[in-house]
Amino acid sequence: MWQSAGVMAGNTFGTALRLTTAGESHGPGYVGILDGVPPGLELSEADLQPDLDRRRPGQSKLTTQRMEPDEARILSGVFAGRTTGTPIAFLIENRDQRPKDYSEIRDKYRPGHADYTFDAKYGFRDYRGGGRSSARETSVRVAAAAVAKKLLRERWGVGIVGYVKSIGDIEGRIDDPAAVTLEQVEANPVRCPDQEAAARMAKLIERMRAERDSVGGVSELVATGVPPGWGEPVFDKLKADLGKALFSLPAVLGVEYGAGFSVATARGSENNDPFEMREGRVATRGNRHGGMLGGISSGQPIVLRCAVKPTSSLPQPQDTVTRAGEPTTIATKGRHDPCLLPRFVPMGEAMIALVLADHGLRQLAVQGVLD
Amino acid sequence: MWQSAGVMAGNTFGTALRLTTAGESHGPGYVGILDGVPPGLELSEADLQPDLDRRRPGQSKLTTQRMEPDEARILSGVFAGRTTGTPIAFLIENRDQRPKDYSEIRDKYRPGHADYTFDAKYGFRDYRGGGRSSARETSVRVAAAAVAKKLLRERWGVGIVGYVKSIGDIEGRIDDPAAVTLEQVEANPVRCPDQEAAARMAKLIERMRAERDSVGGVSELVATGVPPGWGEPVFDKLKADLGKALFSLPAVLGVEYGAGFSVATARGSENNDPFEMREGRVATRGNRHGGMLGGISSGQPIVLRCAVKPTSSLPQPQDTVTRAGEPTTIATKGRHDPCLLPRFVPMGEAMIALVLADHGLRQLAVQGVLD
Amino acid sequence: MWQSAGVMAGNTFGTALRLTTAGESHGPGYVGILDGVPPGLELSEADLQPDLDRRRPGQSKLTTQRMEPDEARILSGVFAGRTTGTPIAFLIENRDQRPKDYSEIRDKYRPGHADYTFDAKYGFRDYRGGGRSSARETSVRVAAAAVAKKLLRERWGVGIVGYVKSIGDIEGRIDDPAAVTLEQVEANPVRCPDQEAAARMAKLIERMRAERDSVGGVSELVATGVPPGWGEPVFDKLKADLGKALFSLPAVLGVEYGAGFSVATARGSENNDPFEMREGRVATRGNRHGGMLGGISSGQPIVLRCAVKPTSSLPQPQDTVTRAGEPTTIATKGRHDPCLLPRFVPMGEAMIALVLADHGLRQLAVQGVLD
Amino acid sequence: MWQSAGVMAGNTFGTALRLTTAGESHGPGYVGILDGVPPGLELSEADLQPDLDRRRPGQSKLTTQRMEPDEARILSGVFAGRTTGTPIAFLIENRDQRPKDYSEIRDKYRPGHADYTFDAKYGFRDYRGGGRSSARETSVRVAAAAVAKKLLRERWGVGIVGYVKSIGDIEGRIDDPAAVTLEQVEANPVRCPDQEAAARMAKLIERMRAERDSVGGVSELVATGVPPGWGEPVFDKLKADLGKALFSLPAVLGVEYGAGFSVATARGSENNDPFEMREGRVATRGNRHGGMLGGISSGQPIVLRCAVKPTSSLPQPQDTVTRAGEPTTIATKGRHDPCLLPRFVPMGEAMIALVLADHGLRQLAVQGVLD
Repeated sequence: MWQSAGVMAGNTFGTALRLTTAGESHGPGYVGILDGVPPGLELSEADLQPDLDRRRPGQSKLTTQRMEPDEARILSGVFAGRTTGTPIAFLIENRDQRPKDYSEIRDKYRPGHADYTFDAKYGFRDYRGGGRSSARETSVRVAAAAVAKKLLRERWGVGIVGYVKSIGDIEGRIDDPAAVTLEQVEANPVRCPDQEAAARMAKLIERMRAERDSVGGVSELVATGVPPGWGEPVFDKLKADLGKALFSLPAVLGVEYGAGFSVATARGSENNDPFEMREGRVATRGNRHGGMLGGISSGQPIVLRCAVKPTSSLPQPQDTVTRAGEPTTIATKGRHDPCLLPRFVPMGEAMIALVLADHGLRQLAVQGVLD
Repeated sequence: MWQSAGVMAGNTFGTALRLTTAGESHGPGYVGILDGVPPGLELSEADLQPDLDRRRPGQSKLTTQRMEPDEARILSGVFAGRTTGTPIAFLIENRDQRPKDYSEIRDKYRPGHADYTFDAKYGFRDYRGGGRSSARETSVRVAAAAVAKKLLRERWGVGIVGYVKSIGDIEGRIDDPAAVTLEQVEANPVRCPDQEAAARMAKLIERMRAERDSVGGVSELVATGVPPGWGEPVFDKLKADLGKALFSLPAVLGVEYGAGFSVATARGSENNDPFEMREGRVATRGNRHGGMLGGISSGQPIVLRCAVKPTSSLPQPQDTVTRAGEPTTIATKGRHDPCLLPRFVPMGEAMIALVLADHGLRQLAVQGVLD
Repeated sequence: MWQSAGVMAGNTFGTALRLTTAGESHGPGYVGILDGVPPGLELSEADLQPDLDRRRPGQSKLTTQRMEPDEARILSGVFAGRTTGTPIAFLIENRDQRPKDYSEIRDKYRPGHADYTFDAKYGFRDYRGGGRSSARETSVRVAAAAVAKKLLRERWGVGIVGYVKSIGDIEGRIDDPAAVTLEQVEANPVRCPDQEAAARMAKLIERMRAERDSVGGVSELVATGVPPGWGEPVFDKLKADLGKALFSLPAVLGVEYGAGFSVATARGSENNDPFEMREGRVATRGNRHGGMLGGISSGQPIVLRCAVKPTSSLPQPQDTVTRAGEPTTIATKGRHDPCLLPRFVPMGEAMIALVLADHGLRQLAVQGVLD
Repeated sequence: MWQSAGVMAGNTFGTALRLTTAGESHGPGYVGILDGVPPGLELSEADLQPDLDRRRPGQSKLTTQRMEPDEARILSGVFAGRTTGTPIAFLIENRDQRPKDYSEIRDKYRPGHADYTFDAKYGFRDYRGGGRSSARETSVRVAAAAVAKKLLRERWGVGIVGYVKSIGDIEGRIDDPAAVTLEQVEANPVRCPDQEAAARMAKLIERMRAERDSVGGVSELVATGVPPGWGEPVFDKLKADLGKALFSLPAVLGVEYGAGFSVATARGSENNDPFEMREGRVATRGNRHGGMLGGISSGQPIVLRCAVKPTSSLPQPQDTVTRAGEPTTIATKGRHDPCLLPRFVPMGEAMIALVLADHGLRQLAVQGVLD
């Protein structure tokens, strides 16, 4: 058995800011190398922890109870408290690797999971906890993105805030997406800034756990302060790179910007956001376009939404087949999230941060050659 | 004024199959170089024309009346009627470049267009017909994708069919997306396989033209015959690369797979597609997952939908500002599509074909190293 | 027969400035897409012709008599006489494609050529005039590099001059490589700035033609005005990228910088170039290091030499085998260069220009993010 | 101070087999991520140690006395003793980081080193032991290449052997480069397979240490068993990628293949290696071409030589300037190699292995699509 990957294996993301990752759910840990961070940025491990804590398991009773501190150790690229321009390597060690019997997920395909497709692809997989397909790999994305967020904030004043917009049939009321603050989001374990809705969502999640079921939802994410001009005209439109970034996250089945799918029933005369001058700058009345025109940032807030499916792992038995093709059932034992949305928020923010910092540096490169 | 681009300029798409494009709406023409086509594929210019004809302007009274034959000339990579493995270059010359007065779009920002964002990005733009931002650049994608489609069909039996699902409030009834045929789609100029709905859609489009307005819609696209195992586990998930591809097309504001945004209100127990054996192969009951699990193809049809906004160019006056920041109005003169959907279908198919052929070759590379 | 290439096929060169090429010796022509040229550079086809003329066949009686005007037509990326920042496409049509009998090179492997290795690689080749392996593909490199040279000259004052240092046993005397001018080089068809040696070299080349043989030589190339700081610390050292660029040219079997192979017999105490201040800047006494330290430009002239083998095509019979494995002989009929060196000079300059402009833009990107 | 890098920073090498590295000489350690290793290869840390031991400092009295075990820990990509196809991450911790006074190399530019060029590039550097510019970064290349070597050996029977050809004026006699064995090379600490010459070389190196000086040399490296057809026709010729790889190593100022610089004085009739049949395969009489034709492997041994400069670090005072531009002298204190050649051998082999395994996988991808 000889198989190949390389540039074709897709373990690297980004262009000017470039993250390469490795690691499996039950191996020694996860490693990331973030290349392209400018020198001179103050940085320490303490900068990475807050978002890692927002993503890590066991953070509230609404999430899985796997206990991982998810601490990232910086191994290079920082000297005397500042980045040097050389690549920054992170190591996040796995701690809570319970010795257990994996024979069930070794031999049966969990519905909604990548067990079957990995076998179809490689013929061989590290089945412990999903191996490379575990959502635990997003920890290293979140660590890297904490650097990107800091760069975005300090260099351009860009802020990124994500939140839960709906879970099941419960929708939070958000009057102005661009006005939502991190504090409002973090005020409850659901991460919905509508506190009343959040309470109902929490109950729904708890009910799902009790019913051995799971539920999906929508996360809305907003980037403010993005200058006009970010994004490239043809293939690397900002909406294209953001789309790839968000769809690269587990469980995302839909992405939309601004007015999103509702543009399908709109007329041009109502859908176009007219240009106007505001505070001396070109702006638009309305933001149905979601902050990008021709795939390039317009200076308006970037607003997008992700549809996140209900957790595939369920404690109730589900029909499936074995590797040998025999019908059977499988029920996930132990630890899982009845709803992915609360922990999705930092993951979504992370991917947006990596894309925006990448395009910010790309656009600086454009401007850097101005005489 | 010195600005830079390169790998950061985003004029190249794909990994194993790689398309690089150049060209502007009113320059001499468009050029594409498609690298990675296997040697031995029978190919001539006649293979490219059918899809170019489906995309070109002036094809029916529902579309813009710009008259372009959109003929692609092959300049390399084909010898004795077959591809050689060396890069295939295409040239599509522009013909219907009417000498006209561009001062209005030179000086005023058209709402919904990239005029302002190009100025913000580069400080300088080829304003003739939108220059590089014109959707006319998709012609070279369609030409290249005709090669990808042929490769997919002949090597793997993969078929790609797109169609119009809805325009405005009119929705076509499609019982089984995977059963729609090209013939059904091409039976009417709207490209909706529900012929009765198509007739109503055509009337709506004509009414839009009469009212100097435009309307949006949804296109659904399906790939059948994709073997399980295509796509990469982390960043280059198939859904991620398809998402980037489709969002790189003009006017797309939303993309969803399988059950799409409706997963947000679903429970895991109903959303998971159980595995079963069918015709001796692992299959799923239902296809809410849209043909990909863990970002890797499952062997089920890949089903996705794109939300396409109403044409931004309108013959009625719209509020805007000049480059100098003065309020004004602009109305598009002359030729435009009152609805983008009919011509979107081949563009959407093209991007799916480029992604699938790329991942097909990537997976062949994996399998190629099997002993 | 199904084979693949893409990113792995190597038809793209560079990072910030990125050239993708296509074309065969006896097809319709060559196409190049140069991405990453900053907007605002004055450019027309007239800028490309001088170097194309230096490279083209038939330029003097010392070279092959194939008659090709080698005119590059610009198809995109230039508006109102200036580059726009979008990709620049070139087309160089083939004119002198003589209908002739290719059965000999179709069936026999020419010693020193890529006929056998192409067959080993692809199993199928365009044998007309060498197809993709013809050195004629360097025309599009030279056209693209003319843009790079203009950018280097206007943006940074960087100049690149190459010349013939030796042919066979005849070595030109060059007291100061950094002082050689284009005029000195172009004063004779050999392109050796030592005019007396050049005359002897010309005679040697003519003798080779008479004797139906060929001869090799050394070209020395110099870049002046390169600011310190270009090149990347680890894999993309400037010397590494230049090395790749020069070895990517046909017939180059050796590359050395500064003191080159003579460092092997030197001691550190004599080989190190001490630092000193000169005209207020850090400089070195001597330039044994060839203008790069740690793979990064030092501000001293970049000096390198290429060993170019004698032309493999010979009008005299040479032992070889057929595709079927039968011993035979082959003698090249018709047009060839008895010595590659005179036409190598613009090719070598072209590759240096592409690398330096690439790294110049890369370093501008670094500096562009300076506050 | 804000500076950028990313894809432009050059910390990634290769295409199908792709190594990304990070780390500094006196930081916590070095990290590498090797992507593209086929699944199914038996692998453990024990496979990496032999070459790491050949490269590490302190291995004999001829080398620097820094004591580093250079043990690589594998953090991912291996399951049940075999590779899984997911990226393999390595960690090599730094141990012998002596707390010392770095003020001298912080403030003075060491001749022949990258201190000045790093400052010119970044304006800021980790000066401890050279930081990112330290040759210690090659440890992670050697670890990764041990995997590549194993793949080459097991999948294709390719072997790579390097050795010292000359040090100063002492040249080893090597009758047949392709017949040299690892055992002959490792039989002495100089790594010259001519044991008598090796003894004289060892004395010369010891004399250099005694004289507080250093000396250069030439390393010859050979790859046997490479099948015909590896390498790409235009930019990614095998000789181009090998050239880049070898010039990316510290201290290499010249690279040549086969007859190398001596082709410059040869005639075509003597330089061409005629084709003949040997053991039923196409072969050449002689190997002046060095195993590649048209940049593609010919099936003959790949033979190349690298000119390695004398160590720049010298214990004797050398003229230089301070960061502030004041003339001064500097003498390296402590540990250094009086001659780089013995430890260069595994580094050169490593880069060849990475390139060959990359192109082997690239060619498998080509062949993988054969029906």
